Amino acid sequence: MDAEIIAVGSEMLTPERVDTNSLYLTAELNDIGVEVVAKSVIGDNRGRLAEAVRLAMSRSPILILSGGLGPTEDDVTREAVAMALGRGLAYSAEIAEALERRFTRALRKMAEVNRRQAFVIEGATALPNDRGTAPGQWVEQSGAVAMLLPGPPHELKAMFERQCLPRLLQIVPKLAIRTLFLRVAGMSESDLDQLIAPVYTKYTNPATTILAAAGDIQIHLRARCATQAEADALLAEVGGPIEQLLGDRLYSHNGEPLEAVVGSMLRERGATVSVAESCTGGMLGERFTSVAGSSDYFLGGFITYDNAMKTGMVGVPPETLAQFGAVSKETAEAMAIGARERTGSTYALSVTGLAGPQGEGPIPVGTVYIGVADAAGVQVAHRVLLGDRQRIRTFAAQMALDVLRRRMLKGV
Amino acid sequence: MDAEIIAVGSEMLTPERVDTNSLYLTAELNDIGVEVVAKSVIGDNRGRLAEAVRLAMSRSPILILSGGLGPTEDDVTREAVAMALGRGLAYSAEIAEALERRFTRALRKMAEVNRRQAFVIEGATALPNDRGTAPGQWVEQSGAVAMLLPGPPHELKAMFERQCLPRLLQIVPKLAIRTLFLRVAGMSESDLDQLIAPVYTKYTNPATTILAAAGDIQIHLRARCATQAEADALLAEVGGPIEQLLGDRLYSHNGEPLEAVVGSMLRERGATVSVAESCTGGMLGERFTSVAGSSDYFLGGFITYDNAMKTGMVGVPPETLAQFGAVSKETAEAMAIGARERTGSTYALSVTGLAGPQGEGPIPVGTVYIGVADAAGVQVAHRVLLGDRQRIRTFAAQMALDVLRRRMLKGV
Repeated sequence: MDAEIIAVGSEMLTPERVDTNSLYLTAELNDIGVEVVAKSVIGDNRGRLAEAVRLAMSRSPILILSGGLGPTEDDVTREAVAMALGRGLAYSAEIAEALERRFTRALRKMAEVNRRQAFVIEGATALPNDRGTAPGQWVEQSGAVAMLLPGPPHELKAMFERQCLPRLLQIVPKLAIRTLFLRVAGMSESDLDQLIAPVYTKYTNPATTILAAAGDIQIHLRARCATQAEADALLAEVGGPIEQLLGDRLYSHNGEPLEAVVGSMLRERGATVSVAESCTGGMLGERFTSVAGSSDYFLGGFITYDNAMKTGMVGVPPETLAQFGAVSKETAEAMAIGARERTGSTYALSVTGLAGPQGEGPIPVGTVYIGVADAAGVQVAHRVLLGDRQRIRTFAAQMALDVLRRRMLKGV
Repeated sequence: MDAEIIAVGSEMLTPERVDTNSLYLTAELNDIGVEVVAKSVIGDNRGRLAEAVRLAMSRSPILILSGGLGPTEDDVTREAVAMALGRGLAYSAEIAEALERRFTRALRKMAEVNRRQAFVIEGATALPNDRGTAPGQWVEQSGAVAMLLPGPPHELKAMFERQCLPRLLQIVPKLAIRTLFLRVAGMSESDLDQLIAPVYTKYTNPATTILAAAGDIQIHLRARCATQAEADALLAEVGGPIEQLLGDRLYSHNGEPLEAVVGSMLRERGATVSVAESCTGGMLGERFTSVAGSSDYFLGGFITYDNAMKTGMVGVPPETLAQFGAVSKETAEAMAIGARERTGSTYALSVTGLAGPQGEGPIPVGTVYIGVADAAGVQVAHRVLLGDRQRIRTFAAQMALDVLRRRMLKGV
């Protein structure tokens, strides 16, 4: 079954704003087996919006509108949908009273203009809004349904979940949907695609989506079948070979980010970690501590940005810096060893590199050394990363987390 | 003058993807005085896309399409626009040869299917693509123009800038556009709006947009006038009183982020800074070092996440921790003083707080203490921030940068 989404509001047509409501709605619709085939953003213009509603309802059985339900002249959704359907607007004394009660509870006087929100399209069902003043509407015509939802995301989500989903489930043919959400570290998107495309391109169900960020690739497989068991079997049939091909580059089977996976591994082992960061400037610590409960295993770290700090904070010998430079295997080793000694952590990670934009002598921008120290000694990984300053730093932090994950996998 | 934007591609209708090309295009169009009145995303469906193109070109003089110009069956933009205009597709031997040369240069053999990219809508101008294989097209009919641009952002941007903008400037009436981009720290959006709405709501030109993030509000004023001098005068007329009302809460007049503003202030003063972070776990260091050239003033920092690290790394007395707790004014003071002593920096910032989701005894989640130490002593700011873990951490880092900015403003 097809659906379309229209976001209403001139403020959504500025260079700064994206319509994120449609992403939430798309995920919810996909979950019940409904495809979104078109979405649009229309400014506060009655005629243009009415035209878009007419077109959408003529070709798709489900239309969701967000926004434009407020009390002002700029809020045109109620009227535009009524125009598109050739219906009138009825004044609901009941809704007006509910609005008034809401204002009284908040010890405020309701402005006259708020009564505009009490207009309901003839034949439509008003949908209560327990998080704001704008009621929603559910209106059917010629086998198609239009839902009018408020624009603020927390109001829209609550109304969709409580009022629309149960009604939609009566209309939409039942489908079981199961998803597999894999994450992979340390591969380029093209290498990954070359590796797994021979498997997933043989299937249109499950649908495969690949999303790439710096050093982190997400693979979503979504199976739709008549029963849950069939969907699970299909995911196993396609996901199994993909997981096998990816091997230990696969770090998550449920979409968890790398810092959470590494955190769980540390907790299981009763191990702790500390960091010494140069070019990432705190980003690696920030990643570790973004996970609630990370105080179980993350002790702390040193941001040794200045060279004197590499010596002062974690004891990198001045001769090492002089002979090999700050961006070197030897400095990464000394940083990791120094951080581990000073914090008493089980593992210590170090990052030193050149994030640019300026290079330093013969060292190319993007050069990164990652050290990992533990009771068995210290190892250093080296790569030259591509991209701008922010991408190099993000990639380096991701790479450091992955270096620790692999070190723990090896059981060291 | 009005414009519409259509992004083509079923992959843009998933819950994970937003069409960011339209944000770039909107900014560029606004800059030459063109308003975007509607935008949409259409899947890989010839009929549906042709219908959308017909509707857009019937009501708006400018239409930009992105994506769907690739070589496969799924790439339907060329055909859909031709259908909408009732025109044929001509095969361009010249484009086919150029494609072949491109493949030869890359030492690859061109697949037969790539010849599909050599079809040009009858009467259209082909737009060269120096960053990819898909040529663009510029086609006019009945006073409206449609531009067909490739989907990958770096290809689209280059083609729009080099091929489309010069042509658009021939069509679009000349307007001078000037922008004022203010940023404010430490105010809530509603307080800010209450303060400045009496000024900006009196004007529709300049247009005012307010964007709020954790502890950071952006105010964009955009004036459109016949001449640059008029636009500047108008911005001064509206921006002046707003700036006066905001006073020292205003930290940027040109959109620069707070870490860059604080960095410039440190550089001007020949001063250096270090940090000691607990609940932000490295985020403050990450903010400082995200600015290229920050090694001029950022020395380094301590991520004292674990309590033992607060003592070990920056010398917080165990008695302070025992008596007042880790989240306290006294600990924030000791952290800032300790970081400053150990790094020899001019200023040291400390952050300690409770980011949640779990509380600790009587201390509410969101409690944050920010310390700033310098030669004159140490001061601590205290707030209880609202929101989830990520928002509290982001707000705390922003607040720390602002504490240092205010300390420097006072000339201490």
